Amino acid sequence: MYLGAIEAGGTKFVCAVSNEQLEIVDQVCIPTTTPQETLRKVFSFFNQYELRSMGIGSFGPIDINIQSATYGFITSTPKPGWRNFDFLGTIKKHYQVPVAWTTDVNAAAYGEYKKGSARDDASCLYLTVGTGIGGGAVIDGKLLEAFGHPEMGHVLVRTHEEDTFQGSCPYHGNCLEGMASGPAIEGRTGRKAQSLKKEDSVWEMEAYYLAQALNNYTLILRPDKIILGGGVMNQIHLFPLIRTAFEELNNAYVPVPVLEQYIVAPGLGDHAGITGCLLLASTLEVEKES
Amino acid sequence: MYLGAIEAGGTKFVCAVSNEQLEIVDQVCIPTTTPQETLRKVFSFFNQYELRSMGIGSFGPIDINIQSATYGFITSTPKPGWRNFDFLGTIKKHYQVPVAWTTDVNAAAYGEYKKGSARDDASCLYLTVGTGIGGGAVIDGKLLEAFGHPEMGHVLVRTHEEDTFQGSCPYHGNCLEGMASGPAIEGRTGRKAQSLKKEDSVWEMEAYYLAQALNNYTLILRPDKIILGGGVMNQIHLFPLIRTAFEELNNAYVPVPVLEQYIVAPGLGDHAGITGCLLLASTLEVEKES
Ligand SMILES: Nc1ncnc2c1ncn2[C@@H]1O[C@H](COP(=O)(O)OP(=O)(O)O)[C@@H](O)[C@H]1O
Ligand SMILES: Nc1ncnc2c1ncn2[C@@H]1O[C@H](COP(=O)(O)OP(=O)(O)O)[C@@H](O)[C@H]1O
Ligand SMILES: [Zn+2]
Ligand SMILES: [Zn+2]
Repeated sequence: MYLGAIEAGGTKFVCAVSNEQLEIVDQVCIPTTTPQETLRKVFSFFNQYELRSMGIGSFGPIDINIQSATYGFITSTPKPGWRNFDFLGTIKKHYQVPVAWTTDVNAAAYGEYKKGSARDDASCLYLTVGTGIGGGAVIDGKLLEAFGHPEMGHVLVRTHEEDTFQGSCPYHGNCLEGMASGPAIEGRTGRKAQSLKKEDSVWEMEAYYLAQALNNYTLILRPDKIILGGGVMNQIHLFPLIRTAFEELNNAYVPVPVLEQYIVAPGLGDHAGITGCLLLASTLEVEKES
Repeated sequence: MYLGAIEAGGTKFVCAVSNEQLEIVDQVCIPTTTPQETLRKVFSFFNQYELRSMGIGSFGPIDINIQSATYGFITSTPKPGWRNFDFLGTIKKHYQVPVAWTTDVNAAAYGEYKKGSARDDASCLYLTVGTGIGGGAVIDGKLLEAFGHPEMGHVLVRTHEEDTFQGSCPYHGNCLEGMASGPAIEGRTGRKAQSLKKEDSVWEMEAYYLAQALNNYTLILRPDKIILGGGVMNQIHLFPLIRTAFEELNNAYVPVPVLEQYIVAPGLGDHAGITGCLLLASTLEVEKES
């Protein structure tokens, strides 16, 4: 029997199948078009295997409230065709197995917690800085979820005094995502983030915005580790800039681990999400058997 | 046998003893002077009773990390005599009973969760707005703690455009506590918060700062309820102002409960903390017996 995992992104779906030792035996990458077309390909991939359980980490917002009539749905996404799509229900109609259902960033946080940079920590927070900004946290082995899942990418930040960019978030303008996502960098500079020089002054602004958010996450959650992933964080020179800005904002107020071990890159690289989905699927197995 | 509770504040210690039904049978209020003098009075109160367990909710910052050499200490407080005081150790030397050890605001959050405004909710956040600003959260029955306890009162806020006050936080200047605590209101207006008219423009600023923090707490934790206590919140006309400012900031982005039921006053009034301490003490009993 196999474990199935879907890392469902706005651009592509990564689907993987692993054995019970969590070794991936097959994997496919499917472009995210319409739900019908995308899911047809998802099914033809997984139909090849006898699955014990599955884990889904989906782009959102999604409904994770079991009591809700729209539990398992992707909710208010602007992505054409996906708004109010019953993702979990559609999967469950095809496969009569237990399915773990959470956000893509929660799955990545779980992967990093179990097998990545936070594998020796009691808690961690994972933040992706890409087309959007989103975060998830694991505390004592449990994903942080309550009335809904976190939307950490939209916290308020103070505008940098030399920044004239108005912000790109359709809901809040100059929230963190509006000021520090890949598209925000592009909106501010007129150039793709990956084409900018290390010396560009935009990186110091970027670090200032991210450090503000990390400062708030620290004060509210006190995680043992903060892991920064996503396309923008390929600019690894950002890490020391963020640590320095964080240190200034915290001003030695809250004790945190040594910064080089506190604010870090994902140990699993781009595989945090899919690994987390498999791990979540394996947890279901254990629960079922106990 | 009795349960003991200490709500240890910077101004006064409230000590209570209850029966196993959590009905308070005796209570005393002791001014916070030196640790020696204060604790002497604490002991002479509790020495009258045979205790099964105790719960302490202390002003902070405190060390809650069981692995730490200073576990149970009050750590970096500016309060004379209390810095690096081994509070829990001193109590445990006198009473050989299990002792729950957490912050005053965590205890209040726990009290409100079990018996107060959030008694029907799966999670809640409690924020006190007084001499300082501090918060605690309970999610699925568990206090939110990781590398340390939250310090939610010091999150960053954007300065209101008509506000010229520089902020009163010794660490951060214009963080939430620096801009919205009782002393911040006094610093800005030159008058005690309780003497200001309802019509004063300072309340709209106050609501703006608190709403920013509530917006961030919501995005990061997604609590089912936010409970606002502390001296400043005696100004009950603040509640509708805060809800309005929150609604504007959220801009319908994250779904939250109906605001009148989401941002509320403590159901236990001033007794949230001491009730939470008793409840935490009773939890220990149950664990010990199981
Ligand atoms: N090497 C890079 N340096 C800086 N920015 C990058 C880099 N690679 C991708 N990005 C930016 O990251 C964003 C894409 O984020 P990514 O995490 O790859 O995917 P997504 O968030 O869409 O899942 C784009 O805005 C892109 O400009
Ligand atoms: N009715 C009131 N209206 C406004 N502010 C008040 C009121 N009562 C107390 N305060 C303010 O609250 C602060 C004291 O907070 P409180 O929660 O009572 O105690 P503490 O935080 O010291 O434990 C003081 O700054 C005081 O000015
Ligand atoms: Zn936003
Ligand atoms: Zn501060």
